[in-house]
Amino acid sequence: MVVRAAVAGASGYAGGELLRLLLAHPQVEIGALTGHSNAGQTLGSLQPHLRPLADRVLEPTTAEVLAGHDVVFLALPHGQSAAVAEQLGDEVLVVDMGADFRLKDAGDWEAFYGSPHAGTWPYGLPELPGGRAALAGVKRIAVPGCYPTAVSLALFPAYEAGIAEPEAVVVAASGTSGAGKAAKPHLLGSEVMGSMTPYGVGGGHRHTPEMIQNLSAAAGQPVTVSFTPTLAPMPRGILATCSARAKPGVSAESLRAVYEKAFADEPFVDLLPEGQWPATASVYGSNAVQIQVAYDPAAGRIVVVAAIDNLAKGTAGGALQSMNIALGLPEDTGLSTIGVAP
Amino acid sequence: MVVRAAVAGASGYAGGELLRLLLAHPQVEIGALTGHSNAGQTLGSLQPHLRPLADRVLEPTTAEVLAGHDVVFLALPHGQSAAVAEQLGDEVLVVDMGADFRLKDAGDWEAFYGSPHAGTWPYGLPELPGGRAALAGVKRIAVPGCYPTAVSLALFPAYEAGIAEPEAVVVAASGTSGAGKAAKPHLLGSEVMGSMTPYGVGGGHRHTPEMIQNLSAAAGQPVTVSFTPTLAPMPRGILATCSARAKPGVSAESLRAVYEKAFADEPFVDLLPEGQWPATASVYGSNAVQIQVAYDPAAGRIVVVAAIDNLAKGTAGGALQSMNIALGLPEDTGLSTIGVAP
Amino acid sequence: MVVRAAVAGASGYAGGELLRLLLAHPQVEIGALTGHSNAGQTLGSLQPHLRPLADRVLEPTTAEVLAGHDVVFLALPHGQSAAVAEQLGDEVLVVDMGADFRLKDAGDWEAFYGSPHAGTWPYGLPELPGGRAALAGVKRIAVPGCYPTAVSLALFPAYEAGIAEPEAVVVAASGTSGAGKAAKPHLLGSEVMGSMTPYGVGGGHRHTPEMIQNLSAAAGQPVTVSFTPTLAPMPRGILATCSARAKPGVSAESLRAVYEKAFADEPFVDLLPEGQWPATASVYGSNAVQIQVAYDPAAGRIVVVAAIDNLAKGTAGGALQSMNIALGLPEDTGLSTIGVAP
Amino acid sequence: MVVRAAVAGASGYAGGELLRLLLAHPQVEIGALTGHSNAGQTLGSLQPHLRPLADRVLEPTTAEVLAGHDVVFLALPHGQSAAVAEQLGDEVLVVDMGADFRLKDAGDWEAFYGSPHAGTWPYGLPELPGGRAALAGVKRIAVPGCYPTAVSLALFPAYEAGIAEPEAVVVAASGTSGAGKAAKPHLLGSEVMGSMTPYGVGGGHRHTPEMIQNLSAAAGQPVTVSFTPTLAPMPRGILATCSARAKPGVSAESLRAVYEKAFADEPFVDLLPEGQWPATASVYGSNAVQIQVAYDPAAGRIVVVAAIDNLAKGTAGGALQSMNIALGLPEDTGLSTIGVAP
Repeated sequence: MVVRAAVAGASGYAGGELLRLLLAHPQVEIGALTGHSNAGQTLGSLQPHLRPLADRVLEPTTAEVLAGHDVVFLALPHGQSAAVAEQLGDEVLVVDMGADFRLKDAGDWEAFYGSPHAGTWPYGLPELPGGRAALAGVKRIAVPGCYPTAVSLALFPAYEAGIAEPEAVVVAASGTSGAGKAAKPHLLGSEVMGSMTPYGVGGGHRHTPEMIQNLSAAAGQPVTVSFTPTLAPMPRGILATCSARAKPGVSAESLRAVYEKAFADEPFVDLLPEGQWPATASVYGSNAVQIQVAYDPAAGRIVVVAAIDNLAKGTAGGALQSMNIALGLPEDTGLSTIGVAP
Repeated sequence: MVVRAAVAGASGYAGGELLRLLLAHPQVEIGALTGHSNAGQTLGSLQPHLRPLADRVLEPTTAEVLAGHDVVFLALPHGQSAAVAEQLGDEVLVVDMGADFRLKDAGDWEAFYGSPHAGTWPYGLPELPGGRAALAGVKRIAVPGCYPTAVSLALFPAYEAGIAEPEAVVVAASGTSGAGKAAKPHLLGSEVMGSMTPYGVGGGHRHTPEMIQNLSAAAGQPVTVSFTPTLAPMPRGILATCSARAKPGVSAESLRAVYEKAFADEPFVDLLPEGQWPATASVYGSNAVQIQVAYDPAAGRIVVVAAIDNLAKGTAGGALQSMNIALGLPEDTGLSTIGVAP
Repeated sequence: MVVRAAVAGASGYAGGELLRLLLAHPQVEIGALTGHSNAGQTLGSLQPHLRPLADRVLEPTTAEVLAGHDVVFLALPHGQSAAVAEQLGDEVLVVDMGADFRLKDAGDWEAFYGSPHAGTWPYGLPELPGGRAALAGVKRIAVPGCYPTAVSLALFPAYEAGIAEPEAVVVAASGTSGAGKAAKPHLLGSEVMGSMTPYGVGGGHRHTPEMIQNLSAAAGQPVTVSFTPTLAPMPRGILATCSARAKPGVSAESLRAVYEKAFADEPFVDLLPEGQWPATASVYGSNAVQIQVAYDPAAGRIVVVAAIDNLAKGTAGGALQSMNIALGLPEDTGLSTIGVAP
Repeated sequence: MVVRAAVAGASGYAGGELLRLLLAHPQVEIGALTGHSNAGQTLGSLQPHLRPLADRVLEPTTAEVLAGHDVVFLALPHGQSAAVAEQLGDEVLVVDMGADFRLKDAGDWEAFYGSPHAGTWPYGLPELPGGRAALAGVKRIAVPGCYPTAVSLALFPAYEAGIAEPEAVVVAASGTSGAGKAAKPHLLGSEVMGSMTPYGVGGGHRHTPEMIQNLSAAAGQPVTVSFTPTLAPMPRGILATCSARAKPGVSAESLRAVYEKAFADEPFVDLLPEGQWPATASVYGSNAVQIQVAYDPAAGRIVVVAAIDNLAKGTAGGALQSMNIALGLPEDTGLSTIGVAP
């Protein structure tokens, strides 16, 4: 089986990481690569680490260019995916790495993104309850946000098992690639090296409703999420520290049992041995998720920490994992759980 | 007025930062410098950034060497300060940058440090309610821990004003200097660069009871603290993200009013203008504290973020600020609020 | 004596560092602050680390705004200083932190900058032979480039003493602040963290003729310089590794003797003890220069390594040092040799 | 064909990187893993990024444990490889990632390593003239040092073509993993982040004679190398800036032609398009070498810059590439030229 794949938005960080992974996927043949302001340039000048594709020239993002592929990945700015997808037809698998089709609630979308809701596509987080079934054979996939990937995986087992109160508190640190490749002063190396700083504090980050959607579904009741993202001085990685008050009767043992059960058969989730804590370095460049849990009896809280690579499992790796499922390929085809460390 | 100061433990990060600040203090004359395994070596070989002291030779940490000074700073491993302090006599101002005399509750001490409680000294965080009065003219000062400095300043106003429920959740990122200068594999540059990782999760960090002590005092009732420290890829700085459920009736405006009142006259605390968030880079090397607040109506929580330099305001700067008060000097003598950025 | 100082270009890295140092200068009173695109904004929003000036508003860069000061510092883009300086009159000390007046040779200027030569001002590197005399009482100062500061200090003693062949080879690593605050994609934190990369290879960097000018003057004959700058993953600092073939008869001892003599009375240059090597971290935020020398008998070369802070001694600190001399103040007024480390 | 491979010294950075690559090699089956002080521990606790091997337990480094494999990789401290290799017999392919068998000249070995010379094995740098032929079918391979890999590849074409004078000057920046995993104070994250510092200046670094050996062989005459290594604030990567005076008649065009010819058929060497410069980030985790050349007419020098990943092409990737040749496998089996960036 040969899967011919096009990538719309190949010059950014998400597109670049996707190409890195596609190059290692044994069934994929890389087709059209498109860009917007970078159309006409070689990939070698934009993504110098992707040596085998150095001579490929970016084409403009049009339906003609993207036609004739089995899979089209969209790494476009918010709001642009719907128009492209419509033109591609229902036979093509379209994998949207943007936010447009993640949220089910149109009101949430409009409140956080300020534009009309484009719709909802099957959600590409296979590890969630019912997640794989929802992706089998589909032709449209909404890839989760990077923070929601880490946070949902960290907390859904507790909510599914009913051991946590429905008020989650999340503080997450992200590498700077999560903020994209557009040159902004606060993202300069001079500014970010040696500095930690929060942003979107107080519930304003656009990934918040996505976390609430996933955790509420797992809990079977509304869950609130207090989410504070912070920018960390590293290129990649998310470390999400998540907690919620434990329901009565929870113990360290019962907490661990819940997580061992939830992830027993997951190829990409690594519930670490007791005493070992997640580190973003350990999952650098890989599709693995490291998770560890603790019960704090004095504070009465469950604490779950998750580490992912925001560009890999958090974006491009997750996209590929869901594509594998949709196409009926083994889920881990072309995906590694080995980090590049140190 | 000339203050003759000795530093016991001059080869570590806390001692080095203290000397950097003492060199800029107009009243201080630097006297004896001591070390343990480094006794006999020049400071230039151990602290190459302290050029004016490069030729000074470390002496052993004995009462004889430390005698004859107006102030003795102790930057010693836990458990060693009491014996030294006793020999120095009651006339000398002893400032302990270690943990030995911070906690009031002997049971807390023993539970977290596993050794007999040495006692309790006046606590060196002048910004706390009654904090300055408790330091005036004293001869013994317990310098707060770096995390408790950031967290207590972030949350005491909310608890003093009665606007927060007594269950705080804190996730803090620290630069690696907070872990000290002893060579351990997990602190190697190869390990920490590009990585975020938590430690002491679930209530085990020794700074937890100190935070609880401060916040409970401000609240007038027991406060629990769920504290998760994380190691960030930067040499200095703490960013503490602190939250608690808001009591009924709290609004963004009333929250901000509480913090404006609390810090109106504080020389070192900078409640940032709305829309601007703390960054550890902005306080690099300075005694300043940057604080910002947010009210998250959907989650019903108050979120307060504080940035400090863990070695400056978090250790050596805080020590000097308290020394100034104890000696009757202007509190900001020799202390800067200007960060070294970018 | 009160020196009233204005800063044109206060929103960039050079301007920000200058203000940080001016705030610590006991004779200086900070007057007008100007910007171009940032005029009208508060300094607090642009330079959040300069807390005492947070409420100051940037004015436009005009002669009216800059009039009435004793000293005007110019941190402007290349080519703009001459017009401003002319309008300020001959009574005002004008210190140009840009390149416009550094080069003596108009042909060099035009070849490297592509615009007409504005002239030559007294050169602000007091440590060079005759450097201090050339600055006493002057009303115009051209502050050296950051790389030429490090390289000239590293190599002039060897050339002045006639112990090195006139073909220098220099490879220097600079922190990213040397590239300025304008947002460019290759300066994003995501790009620079974890990466070393050269630029301007093969003699094209604009600082090359300035190095040649200084070293040729010291040698009394033309010296060539093969200069390769590299961008290092750190915010500040320059480490310059400089070498030249030794003239016959040079030994490790005679080499060291030359450098000990050259820097014996220099307040800011620290010829390190044998066995200790310069580190940019040791001079972070300070006006100090760390230098060490080695003679490689197998290769027949002298190797000199220098570390400076590119923004401090390399720009704003050097500017202040030269201002002190021009105004007849003690040369080290307001300038520290103590680095902020770790 | 199944190649059963053992790794002696699996807990260090070289061993860890080798295992990362071996896991991706389609013909290799990973056999015994040994350690010294870490024998008895799981690999998961020592190399948490190597998830598929997390449960493997390190065995002691003995001939019994290492017996029965097709290939044995040695990642041992200097001086220990000979004894192990002898016991393994002549049928086993032994690949030494240490220095013991790299040098041909016993005097060089003794001068730089201070111990008796163990011998010389076929040298594992296939890109050198005659390099591949020297490795075909061999049973012993000496993997080059990381710096000599970068420097030899950068300069051998110029020396082979006779366009460079035999006095090379090299300044190279290395990530901290090159210094190993043993905890030393100067390698702490607090020390290395934000700092560049040289070491082994003046010809003392042990990799110097290896560079001289390679370049002299290419030149057909003795070449001197002035080598200054520097430690850069990044975990991985070497950027080597190499130069030599050009012989008369060299031009930018003839220089480029020499390098285009030298690397035309090299699968891992990427002579970049004109205008693009090597960056260590672009080869992160890959076996690729990025090279660019410049001719500086004013200085009369050839400048060649090379970027490699010190752990991959510089150690473990190079080892695997040579193993492939020795075993008759396609040279690039299991080796990627795609960097993990940003």
